[in-house]
Amino acid sequence: MTEADMMRSLAARAKKDSPRLASQSIEIRNTALAKVAELLADRRSLIFEANEKDLLSAEKTGLPLPVIKRLHFDEHKLADVLDGIKSLIGLPDPLFRTLLKRELDSDLLLEQITCPIGVIGVIFESRPDALVQIATLCMKSGNCAILKGGSEAANTNKLLFDLIYEAGLSAGLPAGFLTLAETRSDIDALLQCDKDIDLLIPRGSNSFVRYIMDHSKIPVLGHADGICHIYCDASCDIEKAIPIILDSKAQYVAACNAVETLLVHEAVAAKLLPALSCAAAASGIKLLGDSTASSYIACEPAQDVDWRTEYLDLILSIKIVGDLNEAVDHINRFGSHHTDSIVTEDVNAADLFMLLVDSAGVYHNCSTRFADGFRYGFGAEVGISTGKIHARGPVGLDGLVTYKYKLHGTGQIVGSYANGERSFHFKDL
Amino acid sequence: MTEADMMRSLAARAKKDSPRLASQSIEIRNTALAKVAELLADRRSLIFEANEKDLLSAEKTGLPLPVIKRLHFDEHKLADVLDGIKSLIGLPDPLFRTLLKRELDSDLLLEQITCPIGVIGVIFESRPDALVQIATLCMKSGNCAILKGGSEAANTNKLLFDLIYEAGLSAGLPAGFLTLAETRSDIDALLQCDKDIDLLIPRGSNSFVRYIMDHSKIPVLGHADGICHIYCDASCDIEKAIPIILDSKAQYVAACNAVETLLVHEAVAAKLLPALSCAAAASGIKLLGDSTASSYIACEPAQDVDWRTEYLDLILSIKIVGDLNEAVDHINRFGSHHTDSIVTEDVNAADLFMLLVDSAGVYHNCSTRFADGFRYGFGAEVGISTGKIHARGPVGLDGLVTYKYKLHGTGQIVGSYANGERSFHFKDL
Repeated sequence: MTEADMMRSLAARAKKDSPRLASQSIEIRNTALAKVAELLADRRSLIFEANEKDLLSAEKTGLPLPVIKRLHFDEHKLADVLDGIKSLIGLPDPLFRTLLKRELDSDLLLEQITCPIGVIGVIFESRPDALVQIATLCMKSGNCAILKGGSEAANTNKLLFDLIYEAGLSAGLPAGFLTLAETRSDIDALLQCDKDIDLLIPRGSNSFVRYIMDHSKIPVLGHADGICHIYCDASCDIEKAIPIILDSKAQYVAACNAVETLLVHEAVAAKLLPALSCAAAASGIKLLGDSTASSYIACEPAQDVDWRTEYLDLILSIKIVGDLNEAVDHINRFGSHHTDSIVTEDVNAADLFMLLVDSAGVYHNCSTRFADGFRYGFGAEVGISTGKIHARGPVGLDGLVTYKYKLHGTGQIVGSYANGERSFHFKDL
Repeated sequence: MTEADMMRSLAARAKKDSPRLASQSIEIRNTALAKVAELLADRRSLIFEANEKDLLSAEKTGLPLPVIKRLHFDEHKLADVLDGIKSLIGLPDPLFRTLLKRELDSDLLLEQITCPIGVIGVIFESRPDALVQIATLCMKSGNCAILKGGSEAANTNKLLFDLIYEAGLSAGLPAGFLTLAETRSDIDALLQCDKDIDLLIPRGSNSFVRYIMDHSKIPVLGHADGICHIYCDASCDIEKAIPIILDSKAQYVAACNAVETLLVHEAVAAKLLPALSCAAAASGIKLLGDSTASSYIACEPAQDVDWRTEYLDLILSIKIVGDLNEAVDHINRFGSHHTDSIVTEDVNAADLFMLLVDSAGVYHNCSTRFADGFRYGFGAEVGISTGKIHARGPVGLDGLVTYKYKLHGTGQIVGSYANGERSFHFKDL
């Protein structure tokens, strides 16, 4: 059996078992999660040992420091992971919710009921805590998960998987509820299982996510770039604008919801830019500006390529615009449809901006950094999606759920409605 | 400019105008629809003339009769189309609906509001009435549409497009609201506009839809195959089963929701099959059976390939199963996740079937032919989706809509929540 065949057969097993997992009660799914937390806590020394092995070989092979940092799975990471599972257990069941209940005719009842998507393929780079997080999100939502981690975390991943798997089986989940893809072949085999995998969730760098989006027919939940904007309108309050810009850029510079480009209405540039320049310097933020911006402050020139660049660094590009429409067009053209904010005291301008900007998040007078499932009160975050099909923006457990229509009859046939013998009365219950 | 470049520039124009269309009020969108109906009625003789041209050249080039039949656009088709527009105007606005309204903190209000998807690419075979139907659905839902019809209907399509376009512009819709792709180059150029087109809706044969799904990175709303099942359980009522089977197969044999395979519990086969055999013969339905079925009735043998075949014809394949689980596994393996029905008097068996079958529609004691947006009371049907991402099953106007998150602040930054100075209180309003 080739490695690609092996992957296909694992995916087929997950697909076959997915309806059985989908039918488990919330009690069983929550018990399974509690057992996961228990086992991870009990066997912590084994986990740390496995992680030590991965760290040692990472150092030997000379992996970059940021990778090694993400690879760490210590008491701190374990505590975070256990907290996450505890809060997940407390969340309401996303399954078996009735979205629509409609009598089509007497004794012909239509229900629209939430159910799991089915099989989720999860592909992640070095962070082993991501494995636990996404596996438990899938367990809560009744989805079978196929996990493919980076080889640099192989020992930690294998142990974490074994513990979660043992916990799930002991709670009564079907064998295919969780799968670890361990073959050395790269992720391409997984990307081709479009008959059995319903959704892919990648966790990693932009280029990693982009690669996955470009090489699979399976729908992907996530985002590659996060090119977010702040637009300071003619009637913006500078006292609000400066802290919002600094927070959006520097509160966590590597985040997808950090701002990359600042658009400034020409009427406010002379006041805003000098103040921003001082504040940015104090925060270590480098400013790049178009030619008009450069006439107000000293800054390096921004090139066209800057409007399409996610710096993930303390760099902010600035462009002066003539009006709100120019700002909107710039954002819709160069942005990544993630999160964009307007700073203005003019409510009509804010409304127009929020109507016209085609992004998952459109904000008024606040930092772009609020784009986050926890800050939205979802209790858990599956990811942030810049797609417009299925879930958009920060995605909670709902993003792992679809629905089916159940129609309960007593022998009805369409012929009697087509010939006028019977007719629908559509009564929502 | 090559034809592919032309298509790209048309798609880019639609994308640029899409936020302007998205911001039109329901009054303007409904006025535009009323003007469409008015113009189509007024200029009917021009439409019929254009259609005559298409019909003449179709006959000259010897197109098959079913194609020529679908090509017809006569008084009857016009009346249907005008009825459709009238009912569409009466439907509630799918836009600007508040799905969630949550205070994250005082003066920090999160809203989740429905909005159009953006740009919809519509690719259809010969039927010109499909052009009107889908263009008006997009207008109602604020989506820009790019239409690509078959060359055999070029004259009719062009005239219908011109009238709809004139009506939309006169009501104040932006220039990019509707585009007719007229280049001779095939649909491949359209399929590659994945930066500007958000969703594809194909209307045509299975192989046509399959081709589109296989050749574009743009998400597709629709279904290729419709392999639907009926499972007659051990405790099924034969008086209900026979009419349900006949209706599901023969009420409209070319429909995607017609049944293709009948699964029969072995305990009921001896009673059900002879009765079915008589009824099927009377309705002109040919039965194919597995070896066990053949021991009860005279029928041609069903091969493995039959379980994967959508006949679109008066043919029904029959397989005898040992229990409900075997039926479920067969359906999940060979079906197309469209619509499947159980006939049984055992409510627990029905519940289990509806839980375990992984299809958009799971029915109890009724015909599979009910899977239809109008029969579900949606007022309009965009299509039927067998995908699990985004809309599933019969899709009404809601399937052309996504949402954005609006966050209204007064200067809030994430830093104050990270350092504990402020905290979220999550109050749903």
